[in-house]
Amino acid sequence: MRTIKSRSHDYTVEEHASSAAALAAVTRDVHPHFLVDRAVHDLLDPAVRASLPTDRLVLMEASEAAKSYGPLEPVFLDLLGRGLRRNGLLVVVGGGVLQDAGCFIASVLARGIRWELVPTTLLAQADSCIGSKSSINIGPYKNQIGTFYPPHRVLLVQDFLRTLPFDEIRSGLGEVIKLQLLSGEQGFEELMADLEGFATLGSVDRLPLLARWVQRSMDVKQPVIERDEFDRGERLLLNYGHTFGHAFESVTDFGIPHGIAVVLGMLAATSISARLGMVTEDQAGALARRLRPWHEPYAERLADIEMADLLAALARDKKNTAAGLTCILTRGFGRMERTSLSQEQVYSCVIPALSDLIHSEFGV
Amino acid sequence: MRTIKSRSHDYTVEEHASSAAALAAVTRDVHPHFLVDRAVHDLLDPAVRASLPTDRLVLMEASEAAKSYGPLEPVFLDLLGRGLRRNGLLVVVGGGVLQDAGCFIASVLARGIRWELVPTTLLAQADSCIGSKSSINIGPYKNQIGTFYPPHRVLLVQDFLRTLPFDEIRSGLGEVIKLQLLSGEQGFEELMADLEGFATLGSVDRLPLLARWVQRSMDVKQPVIERDEFDRGERLLLNYGHTFGHAFESVTDFGIPHGIAVVLGMLAATSISARLGMVTEDQAGALARRLRPWHEPYAERLADIEMADLLAALARDKKNTAAGLTCILTRGFGRMERTSLSQEQVYSCVIPALSDLIHSEFGV
Repeated sequence: MRTIKSRSHDYTVEEHASSAAALAAVTRDVHPHFLVDRAVHDLLDPAVRASLPTDRLVLMEASEAAKSYGPLEPVFLDLLGRGLRRNGLLVVVGGGVLQDAGCFIASVLARGIRWELVPTTLLAQADSCIGSKSSINIGPYKNQIGTFYPPHRVLLVQDFLRTLPFDEIRSGLGEVIKLQLLSGEQGFEELMADLEGFATLGSVDRLPLLARWVQRSMDVKQPVIERDEFDRGERLLLNYGHTFGHAFESVTDFGIPHGIAVVLGMLAATSISARLGMVTEDQAGALARRLRPWHEPYAERLADIEMADLLAALARDKKNTAAGLTCILTRGFGRMERTSLSQEQVYSCVIPALSDLIHSEFGV
Repeated sequence: MRTIKSRSHDYTVEEHASSAAALAAVTRDVHPHFLVDRAVHDLLDPAVRASLPTDRLVLMEASEAAKSYGPLEPVFLDLLGRGLRRNGLLVVVGGGVLQDAGCFIASVLARGIRWELVPTTLLAQADSCIGSKSSINIGPYKNQIGTFYPPHRVLLVQDFLRTLPFDEIRSGLGEVIKLQLLSGEQGFEELMADLEGFATLGSVDRLPLLARWVQRSMDVKQPVIERDEFDRGERLLLNYGHTFGHAFESVTDFGIPHGIAVVLGMLAATSISARLGMVTEDQAGALARRLRPWHEPYAERLADIEMADLLAALARDKKNTAAGLTCILTRGFGRMERTSLSQEQVYSCVIPALSDLIHSEFGV
């Protein structure tokens, strides 16, 4: 069990042996309300599903459209109609979308109620479940609404990862890789060694390995979010790979999963860094080869991208202006730097790097 | 100028000589967006109105219906469409409704942006502008959504009080009276002495007196909200008069203004306290006589209230259960106490006290 410090309230991250054990933990002494991903609900252990209190249970689709200001109103009303009030507890079960929705609801209901989170995807367990943030869409604006409001407890259950499609596991590992690249060479090498032959493991055999890297991911993220909860400095580096990654997601209409887009974004950043002499071309090429299992399955989808659309997506990013582009580059393992590139550097480094990525030519 | 401590960020309360001076202060070095009460906008000094940037200006109706989750979506979209983002500043100009809407918007836009508040009613200047809270309706649920997020600066301009209808001034004085009753006998007596003949003063002559009691009100409220920002203990006493007050507002469909309803609520609480032997009947009767200028103009509206409706409104209050009623009673000036009344005490004390109030018979 770890305890994470937050300006709002400290919170614990606990490992539980099963969803039944987690359910027993959240219902000890209290009668919580539940907000559950509908797809997760369908896959729940039938005994656990049967013991959820139907009069305090709200199911929700886990889609981008659902985690939007307007579509969340009926969810608020449903929870209020089922009696959730100031002294209540909301237990949220699901991946990133449910976490965003649950965090936002809990943070503004009665100016903040208790909530606990059972993250059910690798992305949510390894990365998003700690750090306090919610991101909610409003109208055409992505992630422009949100709050900093951590759960009062996070309950990790390995078994939820057993039923995830391999695509989602691979995507989740993208953020795991990012955190180890940020931590330094040793963590990254240990992760790569552990992931050797990972794709051939069965869904049960993977679990201990994933659980270990969930914890190793938190080991990297926890001190950063504790020192900079509100994203003013150091924490911004956790967005490594995200400037370009978001553009890849956007331009493929989310056809490239988030963690894979982050891997592509990190390769873009490394390639740009090489063109600027911050790392060697050999280093950039070696990284692209080692991360091949993450980008190769998406080569066809990448080949369909038009460079003009990718640049337009980058231009829509609020951090980028006509004068240039702000992104995180690297001087090697654990040495990432927030950098502003001039329009000239966009032409001489960014566009060639992205073009190579689209055409799966990683030779910088 | 005073500085108020908050868990989010400390903030200042400044007095400015005119709306033009306040506008100059908020636009120094920055290009803020403005969220302004439409009615206030119509009454603004024409030169000030002309210098507001129309491309960054959003007007809003100040109604209960407008400060609701759904109706706020177009306001968010309008502000986003006019370019308000993470590094922006939102200046909010208006009374309580605008403050609630502006506070909520600023607190969840990009997980919290800078905002500054120009309160334009006596209620907002003397009471609500400090204390961090927003209260937003959702569907049929009143004030169930909200945040704690103080403005980064409060700018007081006396002149806004000049154009307020006398009804609103009188209502605002209701909260001023409440704060002095909470502070003790001396503050209350000084206030009563100052208010002698107040109704006969012209709208300009009132201003220095009102400005003084705005400051005296903050003197009482500031230490309480600094010690208990999140309403866990001591701050709850600032709700003196509000349990019954809300019922009077609700049952008259807001036909009794908020501050007057609070006065009536305090008289109810005092009368109940007398029936429980916490104060003498003489003390309760004397207070009712001294506050006659506040309740007498509403005698007709009070006479129309059905006791059954008033009790139903109390029962809808989330703090009250079938077992009884939680309210703040008094042992005299500055000695208020949060008390749970049994169902029997509701019959023997609360109902007779409310019945006397409805019939304007203050003899307890």
